[in-house]
Amino acid sequence: RINSARLWDSLDQMAQIGPGVAGGCNRQTLTDADNAGRHLFKDWCEAAGMTMGVDTMGNMFATRAGTDPAALPVYMGSHLDTQPTGGRYDGVLGVLGALEVVRSLNDLGIRTKHPIVVTNWTNEEGARFAPAMLASGVFAGLHTQDYAYGRTDLEGKRFGDELARIGWVGDEPVGARKMHAMFELHIEQGPILEAEGKTIGVVTHGQGLWWLEITLTGKDAHTGSTPMNMRVNAGLGMARITERVHQIAMSHQPNAVGAVGQVTVFPNSRNVIPGKVVFTVDIRSPEQAKLDAMRAEVERAAHAVAAELGLGCSIEPVGHFDPVTFDPALVQVVRGAAERLGYSHMDIVSGAGHDACWINRVAPTVMVMCPCVGGLSHNEAEEISPEWAAAGADVLLHAVLEVAEV
Amino acid sequence: RINSARLWDSLDQMAQIGPGVAGGCNRQTLTDADNAGRHLFKDWCEAAGMTMGVDTMGNMFATRAGTDPAALPVYMGSHLDTQPTGGRYDGVLGVLGALEVVRSLNDLGIRTKHPIVVTNWTNEEGARFAPAMLASGVFAGLHTQDYAYGRTDLEGKRFGDELARIGWVGDEPVGARKMHAMFELHIEQGPILEAEGKTIGVVTHGQGLWWLEITLTGKDAHTGSTPMNMRVNAGLGMARITERVHQIAMSHQPNAVGAVGQVTVFPNSRNVIPGKVVFTVDIRSPEQAKLDAMRAEVERAAHAVAAELGLGCSIEPVGHFDPVTFDPALVQVVRGAAERLGYSHMDIVSGAGHDACWINRVAPTVMVMCPCVGGLSHNEAEEISPEWAAAGADVLLHAVLEVAEV
Ligand SMILES: NC(=O)NCCC(=O)O
Ligand SMILES: NC(=O)NCCC(=O)O
Repeated sequence: RINSARLWDSLDQMAQIGPGVAGGCNRQTLTDADNAGRHLFKDWCEAAGMTMGVDTMGNMFATRAGTDPAALPVYMGSHLDTQPTGGRYDGVLGVLGALEVVRSLNDLGIRTKHPIVVTNWTNEEGARFAPAMLASGVFAGLHTQDYAYGRTDLEGKRFGDELARIGWVGDEPVGARKMHAMFELHIEQGPILEAEGKTIGVVTHGQGLWWLEITLTGKDAHTGSTPMNMRVNAGLGMARITERVHQIAMSHQPNAVGAVGQVTVFPNSRNVIPGKVVFTVDIRSPEQAKLDAMRAEVERAAHAVAAELGLGCSIEPVGHFDPVTFDPALVQVVRGAAERLGYSHMDIVSGAGHDACWINRVAPTVMVMCPCVGGLSHNEAEEISPEWAAAGADVLLHAVLEVAEV
Repeated sequence: RINSARLWDSLDQMAQIGPGVAGGCNRQTLTDADNAGRHLFKDWCEAAGMTMGVDTMGNMFATRAGTDPAALPVYMGSHLDTQPTGGRYDGVLGVLGALEVVRSLNDLGIRTKHPIVVTNWTNEEGARFAPAMLASGVFAGLHTQDYAYGRTDLEGKRFGDELARIGWVGDEPVGARKMHAMFELHIEQGPILEAEGKTIGVVTHGQGLWWLEITLTGKDAHTGSTPMNMRVNAGLGMARITERVHQIAMSHQPNAVGAVGQVTVFPNSRNVIPGKVVFTVDIRSPEQAKLDAMRAEVERAAHAVAAELGLGCSIEPVGHFDPVTFDPALVQVVRGAAERLGYSHMDIVSGAGHDACWINRVAPTVMVMCPCVGGLSHNEAEEISPEWAAAGADVLLHAVLEVAEV
């Protein structure tokens, strides 16, 4: 078993970097806080005897040597970046849980045949730069590095410039590493495990997603002196489409969700009818057919609303992944580890996207989940228990040991 | 008649200060651009032989002496601040048209019994600091100066601090001046004069207004892993209320308008269900009963939407004025001047709020309007013709001369 107190203490130390305003974290990708978090992680890895490699997307790979120089490494990790008002555990548990596995192997004097690599993927959240899981997406060949470098935040800053600014453009070509297997431990971010009273989620599948950035163009005009029938109100269009996204998701229950998370109104003045609104729709389903149908329905609804209000409407996909099926053999390894350790467990579908979803395309991959209180995540009040964290890391330890071979 | 070319040239020079991105202006109140515009205006006034007074709200009063030291001054003016994406003429025509009247009196060697004062009121737009017409409101005793100083912009900067920062806290106590009459020339900002083919609007009334700032509080949560039935989505609430505001205004046609102009979503991240949205409703009518009914309906609708979604809802009025009836005798003076000058004219109700609406409470007040192309205002593409501007200033000249007595 891993050292639960040490894991909990490391989680707490990391949470001090980029603290939020309500007990959580604001350690958005490629900020100064992200840089500080990366240095702390690097120091910890080196103290645990690992050597750090960094690729040109800023992905971090800390290697613990194996006994067979020819054996491909077993990877485990997640991400250290957070939402602007994020929790302490989303991503961080997967990185520091993996570090704790290595520390525990060191304590126990256990060597593995395969090297073990603890990974921190850059910009998983997609909060500052869409899409989410950007750097694992480049690693897996889904995006080019040029595409990633050119992504901009709301202030217009480029990903590539910000990565250079914080000093984490590494020298490894991205995606060059070959993997024997990849494990990601993560909090569930949903309510199911807690509701079912299970400590471990064995993640068999992941939902697919579309992020659609919709730009509506109307006409800025005075809210007082412009008659109702002369208005071309982009804000009203955004409101109607937001409602339609909700209805579309509701009409595909179960196994479908949809919402608008980000809205920018121009010029955003109390007495100006909005002339332009840019907003993003997030729709998801574990069923490919539902996901495809929802996308088509949202696009149709957006164009219909725009037509009825006389608005211009353009729709740009800014994030996408298809539903994922994780590696069945690794799924069985995780299930077996939970079973042997005596933790209650169930199979589960990930509602969120994860770096593992991309890496699954280039290497056998699986995820381990532990519950979070009230299913709450992407919220500073996100909470887990030390016991849940330890259980997740224990399962990770046993699963990795089986695959990395003692 | 006034010097049309000189007026047009001054309007153009002022538009160079705080230029917009599409031919209009971004000279928001208490910015560096506002400061630069104030200095240009002051220089012009002094060059025209006037002396400048400034009150503790930054309101500017340039006086041309009269022949009777005991006579109360006749005021004319408007505002130099603009919307973030505002036009070149909204407010500015009223200030520089008044300056042109004085320049023309100088050219013609005409002295008046009553002193004449050209005024620039601070923060008419209310774009940066709600409410609109803030400083004329303090002048007229509607707000305290402490209230005004404490208003904050979206970055949390205080009005009082920003006024001091740009160096325009004057030494006159605000509201101390007594007025014989007050005239405000303004572009219509609506489509009626142009549609009716009239050059001059004789403003008999002004619409009343409520600005309601609504704060909806839900729960930040993950857009992917939070089931639909566990969401407390403040963004969806904002969308529903935006639609209801539109419906309420439509149900009170004619003589009613309503829209949502400003929306701030928290945390505004693509994959976070909004936990909080703050937005402002702008509803107006020239009929007191309709205005009151609309306010009650909007508040009821907001609370109903909040209840159906489980959201917290608080509503703060951040701007208000009742419908206004301008001084009948001065209205007749304006109508007579337009008539004598041979300009086509019609009586009109102002759709927008103006400083004149507040000053009307403490002195006989009236407005003169000229058309704008397509009724478009609060848009950088706002446009007027030099002839319309000249006609408005001519009417102002003749009306003021009648009241200030040659
Ligand atoms: N785990 C997580 O929150 N990932 C961000 C990408 C997503 O929105 O699913
Ligand atoms: N004239 C003008 O645009 N004033 C701003 C206040 C309002 O919104 O009516």
